[in-house]
Amino acid sequence: MTLINDNYLKLKAGYLFPEIGRRVKAFQEKNPQAKIIRLGIGDVVLPLPKAVIKAFHEAVDEMADPKTFKGYGPEQGYSFLIDAIITNDYKPRGVSLKSTEVFVSDGSKCDTGNIQEIFGLKNIIAVTDPVYPVYVDTNVMAGRSIVYLPTTAENNFNPDLPKKKVDLIYLCSPNNPTGALMPSVALKKWVDYAKKNEAIILFDAAYEAFISETDKNIPHSIYEIEGALAVAIEFRSFSKTAGFTGTRCAYTVVPEELKGRDEKGNLLPINPFWLRRQTTKFNGVSYPVQKAAAACYSAEGKKEIRQLVDYTMNNARLIREGLSKMELKVYGGVNAPYIWLKTPQKVSSWEFFDQLLNETHVVGTPGAGFGPAGEGYFRLSAFGFVDQVKEALERIKSHLKI
Amino acid sequence: MTLINDNYLKLKAGYLFPEIGRRVKAFQEKNPQAKIIRLGIGDVVLPLPKAVIKAFHEAVDEMADPKTFKGYGPEQGYSFLIDAIITNDYKPRGVSLKSTEVFVSDGSKCDTGNIQEIFGLKNIIAVTDPVYPVYVDTNVMAGRSIVYLPTTAENNFNPDLPKKKVDLIYLCSPNNPTGALMPSVALKKWVDYAKKNEAIILFDAAYEAFISETDKNIPHSIYEIEGALAVAIEFRSFSKTAGFTGTRCAYTVVPEELKGRDEKGNLLPINPFWLRRQTTKFNGVSYPVQKAAAACYSAEGKKEIRQLVDYTMNNARLIREGLSKMELKVYGGVNAPYIWLKTPQKVSSWEFFDQLLNETHVVGTPGAGFGPAGEGYFRLSAFGFVDQVKEALERIKSHLKI
Repeated sequence: MTLINDNYLKLKAGYLFPEIGRRVKAFQEKNPQAKIIRLGIGDVVLPLPKAVIKAFHEAVDEMADPKTFKGYGPEQGYSFLIDAIITNDYKPRGVSLKSTEVFVSDGSKCDTGNIQEIFGLKNIIAVTDPVYPVYVDTNVMAGRSIVYLPTTAENNFNPDLPKKKVDLIYLCSPNNPTGALMPSVALKKWVDYAKKNEAIILFDAAYEAFISETDKNIPHSIYEIEGALAVAIEFRSFSKTAGFTGTRCAYTVVPEELKGRDEKGNLLPINPFWLRRQTTKFNGVSYPVQKAAAACYSAEGKKEIRQLVDYTMNNARLIREGLSKMELKVYGGVNAPYIWLKTPQKVSSWEFFDQLLNETHVVGTPGAGFGPAGEGYFRLSAFGFVDQVKEALERIKSHLKI
Repeated sequence: MTLINDNYLKLKAGYLFPEIGRRVKAFQEKNPQAKIIRLGIGDVVLPLPKAVIKAFHEAVDEMADPKTFKGYGPEQGYSFLIDAIITNDYKPRGVSLKSTEVFVSDGSKCDTGNIQEIFGLKNIIAVTDPVYPVYVDTNVMAGRSIVYLPTTAENNFNPDLPKKKVDLIYLCSPNNPTGALMPSVALKKWVDYAKKNEAIILFDAAYEAFISETDKNIPHSIYEIEGALAVAIEFRSFSKTAGFTGTRCAYTVVPEELKGRDEKGNLLPINPFWLRRQTTKFNGVSYPVQKAAAACYSAEGKKEIRQLVDYTMNNARLIREGLSKMELKVYGGVNAPYIWLKTPQKVSSWEFFDQLLNETHVVGTPGAGFGPAGEGYFRLSAFGFVDQVKEALERIKSHLKI
């Protein structure tokens, strides 16, 4: 008799974004004339940088010639990409990594979802609340207990250390969904906690490129904090910076000095566990995609990515300033592509979702979809065409009944 | 205190192919002049079909234009690819599938590795022995018990039904590594067993394209067996047919009528569990790769893939016939790209690996790497350039001391 994994029955009805999709589809079917503007899912809209397109084409041509054709590559990624990552994303910030510490993958969603597999089921998981649902759902699927750390305007979106001891801590900065940042001092608090309690931090830095370069006090990598190499795994992605949400490439750093304990209490390095997981269950990222990703680090690629980031951050500024002029309390959007707003007059976040959709035909993401402490908040994404962002703001100004 | 997943400590030292890689590298370093021929890992060498390259380029160009750019796609795959799969791979064989039953992924290794997650930890797993190591390792990582079904020349490479009741059964036909086939009658035996015992068959059909079209008695899909839609999940891949080992695309069929039980004994459909797993932990295959895969089903694409398969099967014939003329007992290689040979004079399969490498500079795969019953056997892959295959056979004939 085949048993299903009963833990799945403990999951909430649907993953957040499919639920939004269903509501938008139903609305569009009832209102076929309505021109919906999507500032919900945080998906990029601008084309891939020219340098990336060029490298992508060249790699496809390599696949057409037996002399340059590539079959199976290393599951961890090609060294040309790993070396470019280390040299460009870490070295300039004083972080020294070995090539065996970087694992290229097809997405941070996959990596943040899969990483829990290499840890025991008895670990207590801590997440900030609201939270990117993948951290929670993948641990629920495996059967682990989760501690929620409320992260709201009341604590300035920087949660206190947990009162109960925890073992694995998911942190995300710049934060999805709140757009909040962890300055060095806040991050150091967590690194010290991890050291003291033998905990491991799973640090999602998918949005690090949106940190303004003028602000020197905000680390782009957790490894800029002293001692973090011994307590943290870091996740990064090409999705939001280079527009890779449909192209798929990301990477994860598992430092060799990071350790965990087996049931007998022996300290063991974590890196070989992730290597074993990836070599056993993953077959590497498509070669042309890895070549395309590597082009992000060319001079031309860097310039174009900077332009993409600036375009998005201009949208963020427009949304932040536009909504602030209305009766709305707005957070984030300064060093992050997300604007986190307080729903007006104690309207619930799903009610606000429906209201915004019905009255302005604008799609956002209800805060409650990110966790209980997200109730009463709402996320708008700065990814989108600037005209659409402007029109969305116009509609909200003219038609939203607040 | 962070606990690692102790189940990983029960795994054998390394995944088979990295171990082969290490031995070959050590040999090459000692013998820099040696021209190694690789018939080990089963990796393709011929370029992608022209039709695939053309579609790949076109899709990359779509990513360069804001009007055609693609961000996040459906995690399950685009309908243009799913529809092509159903229409071309299943409909002609009398198998009717819905689009919600097909899940596009980045590899059968990933899918066969990840599928166990949606099932309970108490299920008893059955695998044929020798076996593709991913089935075993991923279940060991999760902590499940495994029943091995010896599959050797003695039982004509078709194992008996298990004496102990099992819940999840991995079958692979054409078989990796033995090259053996399951004709309808053998497959029906398993479908009947699954029905009777409420078991589920995980059917790996990654090599179905290598079945000779003249042999009508061998099913390409398990769903050609009556009732199999209620008891089987099927895995397929573009890797070995269209040369996608470095490009990455595959798919998995989870029929809606397939059911399993929760701990309370309720019967539940399996399809929504896999949908939930994939939407939560996976973000879909790169859009240009999906377009490239869809081109496999164009008239031109089909013709080119047929040529690739014929090329490989000609190699298989050369190896099979060449080795048979020596003192070697050879299996497989007729409807499968793998030749499975009995090592001569009770030489162990790793000893034969080292001997072949040292005496002929040819790399194969030791049977023992696929499971205890693989001891005394050795796998040669027919993927490779025909000149290399011919030279390998010459060297074996001239230099191998048997």
